[in-house]
Amino acid sequence: MIEFEQRSQGVAATLAGHKIDALLVTSPANIRYLTGYTGSNGLVLVAGSFLYFFTDPRYATETKGNIYGKVQVCKGPLIDFAARVLKSKRLKRIGFEPGHMNVEQHEKLRKALPAGFALKAIAGVVEALRSIKSASEIVKIRASVQANSEAYFRTLKRIRLGARERDVAAELDFQMRVLGAEKPAFDTIVATGERTALPHAHPTGRRLEDNEFLLVDMGATLDGYTSDMTRMSYMGVPSKRNRALYKAVLEAQLAGLDAVRAGVPASRVDAACREVLKRHELDHAFVHSTGHGLGLEIHEGPRIARKEQTKLQAGMVITIEPGAYIEGLGGVRIEDTVLVTERGCEVLTPTSKELIQLS
Amino acid sequence: MIEFEQRSQGVAATLAGHKIDALLVTSPANIRYLTGYTGSNGLVLVAGSFLYFFTDPRYATETKGNIYGKVQVCKGPLIDFAARVLKSKRLKRIGFEPGHMNVEQHEKLRKALPAGFALKAIAGVVEALRSIKSASEIVKIRASVQANSEAYFRTLKRIRLGARERDVAAELDFQMRVLGAEKPAFDTIVATGERTALPHAHPTGRRLEDNEFLLVDMGATLDGYTSDMTRMSYMGVPSKRNRALYKAVLEAQLAGLDAVRAGVPASRVDAACREVLKRHELDHAFVHSTGHGLGLEIHEGPRIARKEQTKLQAGMVITIEPGAYIEGLGGVRIEDTVLVTERGCEVLTPTSKELIQLS
Repeated sequence: MIEFEQRSQGVAATLAGHKIDALLVTSPANIRYLTGYTGSNGLVLVAGSFLYFFTDPRYATETKGNIYGKVQVCKGPLIDFAARVLKSKRLKRIGFEPGHMNVEQHEKLRKALPAGFALKAIAGVVEALRSIKSASEIVKIRASVQANSEAYFRTLKRIRLGARERDVAAELDFQMRVLGAEKPAFDTIVATGERTALPHAHPTGRRLEDNEFLLVDMGATLDGYTSDMTRMSYMGVPSKRNRALYKAVLEAQLAGLDAVRAGVPASRVDAACREVLKRHELDHAFVHSTGHGLGLEIHEGPRIARKEQTKLQAGMVITIEPGAYIEGLGGVRIEDTVLVTERGCEVLTPTSKELIQLS
Repeated sequence: MIEFEQRSQGVAATLAGHKIDALLVTSPANIRYLTGYTGSNGLVLVAGSFLYFFTDPRYATETKGNIYGKVQVCKGPLIDFAARVLKSKRLKRIGFEPGHMNVEQHEKLRKALPAGFALKAIAGVVEALRSIKSASEIVKIRASVQANSEAYFRTLKRIRLGARERDVAAELDFQMRVLGAEKPAFDTIVATGERTALPHAHPTGRRLEDNEFLLVDMGATLDGYTSDMTRMSYMGVPSKRNRALYKAVLEAQLAGLDAVRAGVPASRVDAACREVLKRHELDHAFVHSTGHGLGLEIHEGPRIARKEQTKLQAGMVITIEPGAYIEGLGGVRIEDTVLVTERGCEVLTPTSKELIQLS
């Protein structure tokens, strides 16, 4: 529980600077980070040295002794119980998470509080703490990355001509579960042929044909922590054009990795990828950002994007995933999960980036 | 696309009654219902006979021709583009979904609109349409229910003494995928022994021992539509006490099914279950509601709960899932997915409710 105590103190230390007496935490990932709670109905209130955790009776048994903070089991809307604590402790300046509190909850809370109590939108307090991973979190991310890559390796060996996207995805997900993951970190993407041009393709019944790419974008959630990887393989011998496309994206990805280092603005890493693709006249085909942080959530800060001025810091875990997509033809994306260090980065993903030829 | 057109018209028909000129739809399930869009970044604006759909460039290719409505591919926050349409069409009274718009989005929207434009919280317009399933939706739910039950049947045959909860869950999920599901409708619950007393148990490495319950609560998402089922089995020959516990919950579940009929308030169905459990002195052990609607989401309206006055209507699809949980000992829950009809209900779940003895 020492790590939870430190996190709670980390939040508490920011309250005065934001001119608030308490922070209401409604983001499920933030709640898990602060308390260890993994269920679907929880609410946290951090006030000075106290952390209150509210949940409903379904979770009474499993939270007992397993959750950091003062647990209140509530029959009714959690927000009403939080309001009672705020009133009884006279915590009048209350921060809330504007991106994780909906207008309905906000109205309910506002009405439950007497005159003199004020709500203030405070974004990103817990997220800022979360963006720098502790040693124990990095251990968990490594385990997630390993299970994910091993599941890919095991599945790839079985893929034959005619394999259906949907079945490949089912096998990948099964293997990661067998290897200890709770679940996929997101809907596993398996795309074949021209469907690789869709950056977020849902797997279909389409079968892998000769002379085409297979794109797999997958991640595991293991012990709550996520991983994220994209790899390409090819059924048969790639044409010159497809080899060139792959090589260009790989060059961009390596340039991105090369640019990662503590102190560098995220935008510079994005630019490093884009410059390479521009040289290959593929910059127009790179329709998304270069990457994102990950941890308890598959998408966390920092964004690795064109205008993102956030400076990378040692302990951040991010993806580097440039791609190029050509409608009607196909696309290539290559993605690693990497740990930012003082002097560069450690690529956590162990899977080879050679273009594997299936047969 | 005719069904989408009808849905869009269904929303448009409610605008005048709510005194609004347009409704902004931000709930992902509502957006899918109105347009067919299955991605993660979309926004819908319904205004009179128009439906606008906003998304980002990642989805440009796959939305082309596959989405109902006027598609706008936006580089930047979707809400800004929606605001432009609202301004240019002079749609001044704008409804939004308070439970699906966060405070941050609301602020952004408010600031983007000139004086004279007003935002109004309008909850549940699309959800009301969604709660009554069309014939084509019921076909999809049936397919989801069938795949789910078949996956359970296939997996149950393989469960032996010493099976780990986590592996059983992985097998269930794999089987539903093989049977055509996109994914589990929620994190599959597999609990053994005293862990069955946790209504929302995450599967662990615990192994199934002799003389204990195995609880499986699972659902499939197939073609976007969900199913939900809970079944109990027993390793060995149940003790008299455990048989009695199972029988009491089964009796409550059957009483719940019996109470379902168009025109009946949802609370009466909940009461029917609770009365049976009270007779068995187990009402205190039933710590959740009797059920919920399902469809594109695993939890939709109506809630089947103590104070829920909503009257059931033919075409609603709901769960009936009473349970009794005794800390330190174990719990029993039995759950079917059922279709409400004029004269009663059709239990869609085909799986037997006999207490299966494993060996």
